[in-house]
Amino acid sequence: MRGLHLTADLYECRCEQRWLSDGAALGAWLGEAASAAGLDVLQQLTEPAGDRGGISAAMLLPYSHVCVHTWPAQRGVAIDVYLASDAGDPSAKAHGLMTAFVNHFAPQWTEQRSLDRGGDDT
Amino acid sequence: MRGLHLTADLYECRCEQRWLSDGAALGAWLGEAASAAGLDVLQQLTEPAGDRGGISAAMLLPYSHVCVHTWPAQRGVAIDVYLASDAGDPSAKAHGLMTAFVNHFAPQWTEQRSLDRGGDDT
Repeated sequence: MRGLHLTADLYECRCEQRWLSDGAALGAWLGEAASAAGLDVLQQLTEPAGDRGGISAAMLLPYSHVCVHTWPAQRGVAIDVYLASDAGDPSAKAHGLMTAFVNHFAPQWTEQRSLDRGGDDT
Repeated sequence: MRGLHLTADLYECRCEQRWLSDGAALGAWLGEAASAAGLDVLQQLTEPAGDRGGISAAMLLPYSHVCVHTWPAQRGVAIDVYLASDAGDPSAKAHGLMTAFVNHFAPQWTEQRSLDRGGDDT
């Protein structure tokens, strides 16, 4: 049950507004980005996140997930990429996908963390 | 876009086996646990996670998510509870839900982290 969990909070994103507020556009792009990163998505959810126009999205993968939340007014995005090591070292795919996210949303600055998960079962 | 993100990796869980391998049972329990914690779930996914009998589940909430992955053979569970602060301090709900998870799966030991997310937009 080892895995790599990358988190990123993106501020003052300079991307087109639709990527922060258009659920259909964002959802389609997320699926394409996951496929381009070589990930096998089991299911995907994209939902309006309330009365302030944001989007909340989740992609479920085997023993893994990718979640994205957008705050259009603040031009902010919160991203989680959690990939299990069940199919080998997930580091390249996880970092590749996170880089694609950051390039896509084009933030002025980010706060990012990397967590090694589930390493105590050996 | 502030939020509280709790992660937990649970080892040698002593719960009934169905909570680790029965997607319908686990999915129903997750929904009940979220409701009991006072959370408003937008949508929920529960999927078999591959050929080793695990379950991957996600609950999408406004600007928030809860994800659970189970590894029945190792009796392990990975949990994420990420709650935005949009509707007030999420600390009590997040910790309450995580405590419910730990009590439910009854691990021999856990590895838990608490991350303050999205605090740089003020």
